[in-house]
Amino acid sequence: MRLVQDLLDRLAEIGADPPGITREAFGAGENAAMALMAETARGLGLECGVDAGANLTMRWVGSDPSAAPVLVGSHLDSVVHGGNFDGAAGVVAGLAAIAALRAEGFRPRATIEVLALRCEEAVWFGLGLIGSRSLLGRLPKGALDLPHARGGRNLRDCIAGCGGDPGALGRPLRDPRRIGAYVEVHIEQAPQLIEAGQPVALCLANPGNVRHPHIRITGEDAHTGLPHRFRHDAALAGAELALALERLWLDEEAGRRPMAVTIGRFHTLVERHAMTVVPGAFEMSLDLRAYEPAHLAALEAKLHGLVGAVAARRGVAIDLGPRSAAAPGVMDAAILEELAAAAARQRGLAPPRLNSPGSHDANNFAAAGVPTGMLLIRNRNGSHNPDEAMETDDLLAGIGLLTLWLAGRAGH
Amino acid sequence: MRLVQDLLDRLAEIGADPPGITREAFGAGENAAMALMAETARGLGLECGVDAGANLTMRWVGSDPSAAPVLVGSHLDSVVHGGNFDGAAGVVAGLAAIAALRAEGFRPRATIEVLALRCEEAVWFGLGLIGSRSLLGRLPKGALDLPHARGGRNLRDCIAGCGGDPGALGRPLRDPRRIGAYVEVHIEQAPQLIEAGQPVALCLANPGNVRHPHIRITGEDAHTGLPHRFRHDAALAGAELALALERLWLDEEAGRRPMAVTIGRFHTLVERHAMTVVPGAFEMSLDLRAYEPAHLAALEAKLHGLVGAVAARRGVAIDLGPRSAAAPGVMDAAILEELAAAAARQRGLAPPRLNSPGSHDANNFAAAGVPTGMLLIRNRNGSHNPDEAMETDDLLAGIGLLTLWLAGRAGH
Repeated sequence: MRLVQDLLDRLAEIGADPPGITREAFGAGENAAMALMAETARGLGLECGVDAGANLTMRWVGSDPSAAPVLVGSHLDSVVHGGNFDGAAGVVAGLAAIAALRAEGFRPRATIEVLALRCEEAVWFGLGLIGSRSLLGRLPKGALDLPHARGGRNLRDCIAGCGGDPGALGRPLRDPRRIGAYVEVHIEQAPQLIEAGQPVALCLANPGNVRHPHIRITGEDAHTGLPHRFRHDAALAGAELALALERLWLDEEAGRRPMAVTIGRFHTLVERHAMTVVPGAFEMSLDLRAYEPAHLAALEAKLHGLVGAVAARRGVAIDLGPRSAAAPGVMDAAILEELAAAAARQRGLAPPRLNSPGSHDANNFAAAGVPTGMLLIRNRNGSHNPDEAMETDDLLAGIGLLTLWLAGRAGH
Repeated sequence: MRLVQDLLDRLAEIGADPPGITREAFGAGENAAMALMAETARGLGLECGVDAGANLTMRWVGSDPSAAPVLVGSHLDSVVHGGNFDGAAGVVAGLAAIAALRAEGFRPRATIEVLALRCEEAVWFGLGLIGSRSLLGRLPKGALDLPHARGGRNLRDCIAGCGGDPGALGRPLRDPRRIGAYVEVHIEQAPQLIEAGQPVALCLANPGNVRHPHIRITGEDAHTGLPHRFRHDAALAGAELALALERLWLDEEAGRRPMAVTIGRFHTLVERHAMTVVPGAFEMSLDLRAYEPAHLAALEAKLHGLVGAVAARRGVAIDLGPRSAAAPGVMDAAILEELAAAAARQRGLAPPRLNSPGSHDANNFAAAGVPTGMLLIRNRNGSHNPDEAMETDDLLAGIGLLTLWLAGRAGH
């Protein structure tokens, strides 16, 4: 489908920042991508609007005002030097599905709405899923005061500057009970579909997470010659904590309790560190994720135990700093079966049912009680890196499923 | 002694850079400290000169031109936000000992020379002991092309800019066989003398080192959601290597084979890392030290084994990058006994004999075959940090020993 490739190509131009793609949330990249989607939506006859969270809504108004609207969406921001498809593919999929339905002469009974949600990536504020949090009244306390990683403007001002109304946030912008469904198409961030040889998967659940963006370990700076018994090396304490968390992960996986640990920032202090100074300060981030609320809570308790043990053994202080959390998102069983039924009508498709490696805006919809579904698209080389690689044909397979499903859900 | 406290106070003013002291090698701090020492030396009637390595030489010419000169010295640069005494205390000690000898009416037979050596700290060029290397023809190949950490000017230009003659380097500036002795006074960089309750120690040996200032680990950037089996996390590889080297250290110490490992820089890449990106790149420095050449060589072989094992297990590439090395420095037995005899004449002194925690310019003199000795001065809180703390009275005890020893060596 020509529309899909055109939109992906134009998004790549917007975000070009070699190596890879950068579409800064609440910045030039995300705004230009939003404008491109709105322009495309207007061309398809959709009504565009901006909600109080500065999210873009693109509505194909249905014939029955009493029917709960059916939402399709994802996000348009990227990480720094990331790929073109993480997020954006889902917004493109929504518009493409509507274009396909229009071409077939379909007329919706329930309103179909494509959402381009703001700032899904946690790199910008140390907190992710911001657009869907805003929409569903799930921004944590103090979130509006967080500074943007580029320039330091707080979230409140960023939202206001993009046409939102931060004063209206804090409660749901729309009643979750009046949303018929939310379905998100998103590239898989792992190569499980490459392994499986399938273009699309049906998602069972998204992980929730507990995050500590700014963990600080404080030991004592010292000379290279200091004997080991006198040292309080903050970096080695960080190394020990990191490997202990990795060990925990492997043990849990061996017990068939899926989870993940990511330590993306892990560093001595660039303004202080030197080859001949034992590092007295170390910083790291932590993203701990799991698929069940009780499991996630148990893992967080284990994290605290490991932190205490490493701090005591090495005579350092470990301050976990700010904490954010996102609830695991379990997908709706009825939507899952509808998507499976749609797949059964498509030749050559046998979509596996997988846990999503990543958290998504869908988590917030599921947590708010909206019946939620996700389609994962095959993607070589993972995501959040310049080598992210989704084949357009695989996205088209996902769009085909989405189109069939929308026809059933929003039709007569 | 008033001179000592005055010089230390004026050095602290020169280097003031809260928290702590910064005297940049070949920069304003080291140059101002050199000027202060030269001014003081001229006040004591010494002849000042600058050698081809831009080292400052301050000579009290002896009556017997055939007697090999006796050298006393250390360095005046510091690390960034370091302390006031690492290096500078030794230069001050040399001048103070000469002042004491002059006050007693002593007239030297052999020339006594105080050396203020350039750029001992490795932070400036990723290579330490530069002044003594220059003096003794021990600069490694390519050293003159190394860029300064601040501003990037190469070592060649730095030396020329401070009055040296880089074209004359590469062979010894003076014949080591024509140097009678080199003795260095230096603060201890560990609290072993605090433990021992003594102001001064006699040094047995200085460690040599093998250094890799820029180790680079390359894995693959990836999304937080990537399952463990697909990851090539460069930071966790760094953590594993660091803890394996610490384990090696503890095992060697348990076997009474003294050594040390310091990883001062240990970091994901500040321009790339993010909480939700599995780090595909990691950098670290390594300083590996030991007191015997054969032991150091064996440790380096073990390092290579660990690097290969971690790289293979984690599917990452580990590039050790540039290597520098300094030979262990074993102190001269005759000088050690002369210093011990001097101590026996001082009430209350019972200096322990210790391995130095740190490498020093003395290493180069010992390696060049010059009879070499060192006195270590008690120092709380270690070195290379703002809390470095030497009591002036402890330095005066060391100066007393040095003075007695010089009287014996350079006298009639």
